Amino acid sequence: MQGKFVVVEGLEGAGKSSVISLMVDLIQQAGLTCQTTREPGGTPMAEAIRDCVKHPWPEEVAEETELMLMYAARKQLLVNKILPALKQGDWVVGDRHELSSQAYQGGGRQINAATMQTLSSLTLNGFKPDLTLYLDVEPATGLQRARGRGELDRIELSGLAFFERTRARYLELVQADSSIVTIDAMQDMAQVHAEVKRHISAFLPC
Amino acid sequence: MQGKFVVVEGLEGAGKSSVISLMVDLIQQAGLTCQTTREPGGTPMAEAIRDCVKHPWPEEVAEETELMLMYAARKQLLVNKILPALKQGDWVVGDRHELSSQAYQGGGRQINAATMQTLSSLTLNGFKPDLTLYLDVEPATGLQRARGRGELDRIELSGLAFFERTRARYLELVQADSSIVTIDAMQDMAQVHAEVKRHISAFLPC
Repeated sequence: MQGKFVVVEGLEGAGKSSVISLMVDLIQQAGLTCQTTREPGGTPMAEAIRDCVKHPWPEEVAEETELMLMYAARKQLLVNKILPALKQGDWVVGDRHELSSQAYQGGGRQINAATMQTLSSLTLNGFKPDLTLYLDVEPATGLQRARGRGELDRIELSGLAFFERTRARYLELVQADSSIVTIDAMQDMAQVHAEVKRHISAFLPC
Repeated sequence: MQGKFVVVEGLEGAGKSSVISLMVDLIQQAGLTCQTTREPGGTPMAEAIRDCVKHPWPEEVAEETELMLMYAARKQLLVNKILPALKQGDWVVGDRHELSSQAYQGGGRQINAATMQTLSSLTLNGFKPDLTLYLDVEPATGLQRARGRGELDRIELSGLAFFERTRARYLELVQADSSIVTIDAMQDMAQVHAEVKRHISAFLPC
């Protein structure tokens, strides 16, 4: 039996990491084997590409460069980790996936829809997650939480307006796709986790 | 006055390096300032992307990944090195450029024309070299010369049929573009250099 690919999405400081831990626990408690991935990254080559994307380079990083690197890393992860795991019946919990590119590069960086569509098709060839949980947080709140964790990377250093555009695109995309569930991540952690538990439990095989 | 971008193209073992040295000498002898680039690479970030492309990864490297990395590196080089150099009046001699992607990824890897066109437009936005010298060599001869230099990288380890398709695409593209000059690189080095000298001298300002 084919496994399922479930993804957690949201801005910096939305609380993705603790939600992912909870999801892995719930999936394993249901007797399923579970792997985790993160994007960009998740294979040796994709992690090297992640380093390229995140590094504070002493040169201008073109928006198109960032975009192509994100999709290059995604292709490696898909071919070498996600698809083989699903094929052998494992579940995969992803820390970000395609929706992040659509929101950050398409929304935040305002790269045009045709370019986004071409790279998405080239990379994914129609593949999509079975379920996505989008943790919605106001940028100012999320960034304040993220700053508390320590140093911010190159992308996290983009201005507040960038993250406002990114969130707006997330909210548009979520409304248009019934496989994406929105969870209010401004709530107490306990409430967020209760909602996650409800959605994942409903999605697990009986 | 704007500088010129002149590119040397060809298969492994075509003799690009010594031709580039000669071209730099000729350009400098004409009293012009000359910079050199190589692709993929040529800026700190583009060199890191080059390492990703060339490394012998323990995972399958998807053709689409290779393609997107090549264009990501090209975008960084164009924005941060080639365009600023030309703007300040310098000449730039490039070791490979767009024609390599068209030949290796489009021809050798057989990636479809629409995808090649989209990535090319996204990256170059119509920019092209002022002059390209294509050093034509039979793959078997070129690879034998390259093997003499030492270890071959991941792409250079592709089979002979790959290089036959790459050369065939080079030859097609050269015929369709009057800014590309073909030089028979099976000749003696002295003859090759004499031809290069003739073409570059004709192209230099009097």
